[in-house]
Amino acid sequence: MSAVASDPGARIEFLRRLRQVRAFRPDPVSAAALRDVLEVGRWSGSASNTQPVEVVVVEDTAVREQLAAGGANTARTAPVALVLVTPGAADRFELEVFDEGRLCERLLLAAAAHGLGAGVAWLKGEGPEAVKRLLGIPAGRRVRTVVGIGHPDTAAAPTRDRPAPPRKPASEFAHRGRY
Amino acid sequence: MSAVASDPGARIEFLRRLRQVRAFRPDPVSAAALRDVLEVGRWSGSASNTQPVEVVVVEDTAVREQLAAGGANTARTAPVALVLVTPGAADRFELEVFDEGRLCERLLLAAAAHGLGAGVAWLKGEGPEAVKRLLGIPAGRRVRTVVGIGHPDTAAAPTRDRPAPPRKPASEFAHRGRY
Repeated sequence: MSAVASDPGARIEFLRRLRQVRAFRPDPVSAAALRDVLEVGRWSGSASNTQPVEVVVVEDTAVREQLAAGGANTARTAPVALVLVTPGAADRFELEVFDEGRLCERLLLAAAAHGLGAGVAWLKGEGPEAVKRLLGIPAGRRVRTVVGIGHPDTAAAPTRDRPAPPRKPASEFAHRGRY
Repeated sequence: MSAVASDPGARIEFLRRLRQVRAFRPDPVSAAALRDVLEVGRWSGSASNTQPVEVVVVEDTAVREQLAAGGANTARTAPVALVLVTPGAADRFELEVFDEGRLCERLLLAAAAHGLGAGVAWLKGEGPEAVKRLLGIPAGRRVRTVVGIGHPDTAAAPTRDRPAPPRKPASEFAHRGRY
């Protein structure tokens, strides 16, 4: 635990300052960074350690364009798009979605750890079914979330200098003792 | 971005090594650590920046005991239990659960940044309705997840020395190009 607690302030800042990135430069993501992002995903906690989430790594430009056409707009410019896949068990829908959210947040943070940006997008309408056919994902699986990863295009969308989207005041987010 | 990328290896290890903690010592959580955990939660990203998740901070022993009775077993020994609340909008269920998972992962990581442990538990059966009445949460809201935070009781459950639960091999977690 000592290494984890070695600099609480820096780690809190790292967590607190995570920002979504929606426009990317074409520069590739290094193999080492991508491997780390996937490892952090693979080690995500899940309900009863069921590990329901798998990932399809899409780098091909034409395939990414089809992900964008299905609603996952960040996949157009992100050199790497991660398509999240869950089993689609009807009686575990809530657990799968929750675990997917947990894993997704870790992917964003792992990208940020490498100075990369990442953005979450959801497939819409016919998008999920089209993407399943495109990527050979069995029909029963659930596909919805796509995480785009790459070097932020600060000229197109200067995430770094743009003010963060406003947040609720602390008093509306956290309630002491009672709601 | 420079500070974020300053030590990718250390940050990846921090993310990768997060472990659930289910048994806690009675020692209190410092006000500074709790404030940081809540700030990291408050700054969580959410779909269209809707910020659907709120938190009720429960420290009272008798109330925590009732959370545990409702299925959130980690609330019994954790000195702080965070009860997550979402609006319960029927047409945004999937988004709310996903955003809740994202925020929950950040709470765990923020606790770990301070050398604390945290564990996720879900209320079961009549638990959510009973907890809403207990904490004054309006009936329409959705309540399910409780995050217990405290100093790990390594004697009761030596998280640090226990082997991590097994994970899928990388080849089963991530698929290249196609599923």
